[in-house]
Amino acid sequence: MKEQYKIPDVVIRRLPRYRRCLEELIASDKDRISSNALSEITGFTASQIRQDLNNFGGFGQQGYGYNVKELHKAIGRILGNTRAYNLIILGGGNLGHAIANYTYLQKEHYFLKAMFDVSASLIGTYVNGTKVLSYSELDGFLDGNKIDIGVICTNKSSAQEVADKLVAGGVKGIWNFAPIEIKVPETVVVENVHLSESLHALTYYINRTE
Amino acid sequence: MKEQYKIPDVVIRRLPRYRRCLEELIASDKDRISSNALSEITGFTASQIRQDLNNFGGFGQQGYGYNVKELHKAIGRILGNTRAYNLIILGGGNLGHAIANYTYLQKEHYFLKAMFDVSASLIGTYVNGTKVLSYSELDGFLDGNKIDIGVICTNKSSAQEVADKLVAGGVKGIWNFAPIEIKVPETVVVENVHLSESLHALTYYINRTE
Repeated sequence: MKEQYKIPDVVIRRLPRYRRCLEELIASDKDRISSNALSEITGFTASQIRQDLNNFGGFGQQGYGYNVKELHKAIGRILGNTRAYNLIILGGGNLGHAIANYTYLQKEHYFLKAMFDVSASLIGTYVNGTKVLSYSELDGFLDGNKIDIGVICTNKSSAQEVADKLVAGGVKGIWNFAPIEIKVPETVVVENVHLSESLHALTYYINRTE
Repeated sequence: MKEQYKIPDVVIRRLPRYRRCLEELIASDKDRISSNALSEITGFTASQIRQDLNNFGGFGQQGYGYNVKELHKAIGRILGNTRAYNLIILGGGNLGHAIANYTYLQKEHYFLKAMFDVSASLIGTYVNGTKVLSYSELDGFLDGNKIDIGVICTNKSSAQEVADKLVAGGVKGIWNFAPIEIKVPETVVVENVHLSESLHALTYYINRTE
């Protein structure tokens, strides 16, 4: 599915929040919702919501609002949630453990296939049902398994080397938690979670508010 | 320090990355850099960089570029890095542990003062030098200590209750990792790290690239 033009990245990043709020509405048996009501739940303005959804053809009907289940399904389709993804975690520290235990993954058809670490005490053990392997097994593992996403939870100095192995092994997406800009070919997508950037944005706004 | 007008949020979120790249330049003894060279390192276009920095008066000189140390210091000032921040972590699971062990905090004058959890086996222990307390001690702790930022690493169902206690205890910023929209008064800032949103953005772009 290709759009006619490039949807702005900020719009893409709002879609999962819409979807999450719609899930809560489904859980509370709500069938339809106006953009005004959706605005209250999501914290985005109603006109922002209408504008965002119009990027994909719009899903609302004048005087009716949005059908909750249909909109939820449509956003899921846009975000690529109609298929399953195989993941591996690189780095079995606290963060790697946190992600292996992240219940959202199972719920949304993200399948964690293995975790890789250097620690002899960790290799061979299981984290939330996922086996920890040695990095020496990584290339072979990628040869034998179709992995969509590599989650980099290593330290800064190992991140690029690990990313290179992932790319060579056919991984299409890297979810990078290491505090470094990883270089990959254009055919591979990197999504960074740089906690320091989020923390600095927080302190910026704290100082603006005070 | 108040700007004349509101700087767009996307600009604020790019500043920490500029700052991080400038740190690497400082570490490699580079004194000045052009916006073109900064573009290569950060991955943002040179015109984007110039435009972003012009929001704050601009720091470059025609034909010279940017003074690396001055720009690093100036961005730190904008982001509020000229003061220290006291933090507490709510929730001592894997994610709470990961953040308590996040070396960046010490480096940048974020001081972790306590961690709170419900688990009897955890209460009274130390995580990276920080004592784990019981939630029953939270109100008293906030009375006796000036805490700037509460880091919510609880599950979804406890997050709002914990946030309410933080707000009542005078906390000015909440770094929220729980997958829920937390409601706070306007005087308190919430910065969300919703991992699911980041993961969905990744799958969106994987499907666009394939």
